[in-house]
Amino acid sequence: MNVAIVGASGAVGQELMKVLDDLNFPVDNLTLFGSKRSAGRSYSFRGKDCVVKELCHNDDFRGIDIAFVSAGGSTSKEFASTITKYGTLMIDNSSAFRMDKDVPLVVPEVNGADAFNTPRRIIANPNCTTILMVVALKAIADISPIKRVHVASYQAASGAGAAAMDELVKQYAQIAAGEAPTVEKFAYQLAYNLIPHIDVFTDNGYTKEEMKMHNETRKIMHSDDISVSATCVRVPVLRAHSESVWVETESPVSPEEAREALAKADGVVVVDNPAEKAYPMPLDASGKDPVYVGRIRRDIANPNGLTFWLSGDQIRKGAALNAVQIAQYILNNS
Amino acid sequence: MNVAIVGASGAVGQELMKVLDDLNFPVDNLTLFGSKRSAGRSYSFRGKDCVVKELCHNDDFRGIDIAFVSAGGSTSKEFASTITKYGTLMIDNSSAFRMDKDVPLVVPEVNGADAFNTPRRIIANPNCTTILMVVALKAIADISPIKRVHVASYQAASGAGAAAMDELVKQYAQIAAGEAPTVEKFAYQLAYNLIPHIDVFTDNGYTKEEMKMHNETRKIMHSDDISVSATCVRVPVLRAHSESVWVETESPVSPEEAREALAKADGVVVVDNPAEKAYPMPLDASGKDPVYVGRIRRDIANPNGLTFWLSGDQIRKGAALNAVQIAQYILNNS
Repeated sequence: MNVAIVGASGAVGQELMKVLDDLNFPVDNLTLFGSKRSAGRSYSFRGKDCVVKELCHNDDFRGIDIAFVSAGGSTSKEFASTITKYGTLMIDNSSAFRMDKDVPLVVPEVNGADAFNTPRRIIANPNCTTILMVVALKAIADISPIKRVHVASYQAASGAGAAAMDELVKQYAQIAAGEAPTVEKFAYQLAYNLIPHIDVFTDNGYTKEEMKMHNETRKIMHSDDISVSATCVRVPVLRAHSESVWVETESPVSPEEAREALAKADGVVVVDNPAEKAYPMPLDASGKDPVYVGRIRRDIANPNGLTFWLSGDQIRKGAALNAVQIAQYILNNS
Repeated sequence: MNVAIVGASGAVGQELMKVLDDLNFPVDNLTLFGSKRSAGRSYSFRGKDCVVKELCHNDDFRGIDIAFVSAGGSTSKEFASTITKYGTLMIDNSSAFRMDKDVPLVVPEVNGADAFNTPRRIIANPNCTTILMVVALKAIADISPIKRVHVASYQAASGAGAAAMDELVKQYAQIAAGEAPTVEKFAYQLAYNLIPHIDVFTDNGYTKEEMKMHNETRKIMHSDDISVSATCVRVPVLRAHSESVWVETESPVSPEEAREALAKADGVVVVDNPAEKAYPMPLDASGKDPVYVGRIRRDIANPNGLTFWLSGDQIRKGAALNAVQIAQYILNNS
């Protein structure tokens, strides 16, 4: 396969190169694209140096089979027709096309088959927090349909990019040195703090990030009967997101049934042994592929409810890994 | 009033001295008690030096009107009869007596009048996370009775004491220096991490901390119709707790009604102006008295639901301030 990465110098772009290699993805040629600023940089992939080309409106994508695009929504919108002009499949990490009816929104463990319905040659990679959650929800929905979800997120700095992770580390050094911390990547200081504000606010008081969890979950899980009320919070963690989730199902699902289903579910590892202090933590999930699920128990406030806690790497399953898994799903099932 | 503090050298003990002064509490004499280890230490209170006496089974509490006790549950249990022997009112910060039928559990803004029913001369100060939440819930329950609460907490290091706060700061310094972080106060490294485990696990999979939020909320709010399902998580924040709360009421309460009621509620400050990036954050709540409430909006997964976010100082309203406010309530209403 001739593969391209657009946004090669970003946190997700860099991870995409690692994941392509980790998953032994069949890459004949890798072409890297980036902004004018990052053009000319060189990265090694499977022993070969790849130089980043500037992304332009030309015929550069002719002959490329799959382009993984992670350079922000405006770049995705502007370049979608250039990228797909000669039939290249665009797997887009931005939110630009996620809710478009003719663009599938895919988490392979949940709705992989949707990846074959690509009239525009675009597949959208869902929001990171949503991906991690639906991988777990799928196992429960297979036992009984899901009606409502309440979710509080604990989102790492990585969701705002590599520079945001650097800023968090720098803030701790500055505070330790008695200096005022640099605040550029988030609305406020994140070190020793929490910021209940990710993406912009919408008219109903929810942020776009929170509404993505509602809208994208319904689209991925093919159900408009599911409602999701989310509160998304940035926490001073580097690269794995965590979530406290309450699920109400049509008929009751016991913690034992859920645990068994989750243990068998693709992409999930159950870490749920309180007696041994075993539960998911973002530090353990960092750099790993699975969604770790634990603290599985009855919702004592709802007879049809379950609650659990999950952690998963935001850059891998939340972004780069899921994108490559979409491509892999298509190859394996074509 | 002759006042005593038991556990004077701890984080809460130290804050109790500050709060007594901040609230102009009428203190004629302050007597400090502590363990053998802290006996002999001296602290200044209103310009006078107070030396910590070792807590012993003797007649030291004769003549003391109120004793604020914050030295752990086992000390509270062991010394309750010694402390109350001559009629001293014991305001206890531990969980030792909270659920005892003949011990009131008091948050003055919610159930202050309960403080007058003290057959054992003991009043219990509730769990910190519960105090912060019920101050906000009260305003909503006054509009329509509360049925269910789902709450995800984001709890600061201070809940585990002053040494735990120091350990968190030290961990960042150690990580920056490339050293392995010291892990003594929590089950795992807290720096750059989250630990979904506060207090010990119970048979139903919830921790004691989580069950306190259920049981204590019902007792404080005088309602066995309320169920609370909590997930309590330790986060790398120093001294203010935060909570994502979903509330289901008997009849719908609009965000506008809730906001208005919360704005008028004792002990609450509403910080809820997304357009101006105004919402509660633990860094802003640290060292402050109110419970800050924001992100008030409809629960889009429940027609009778509301959701909000709060932050409040764990050592002040979560512990020392509430204890002194209980004493103040009694004085002002006697």
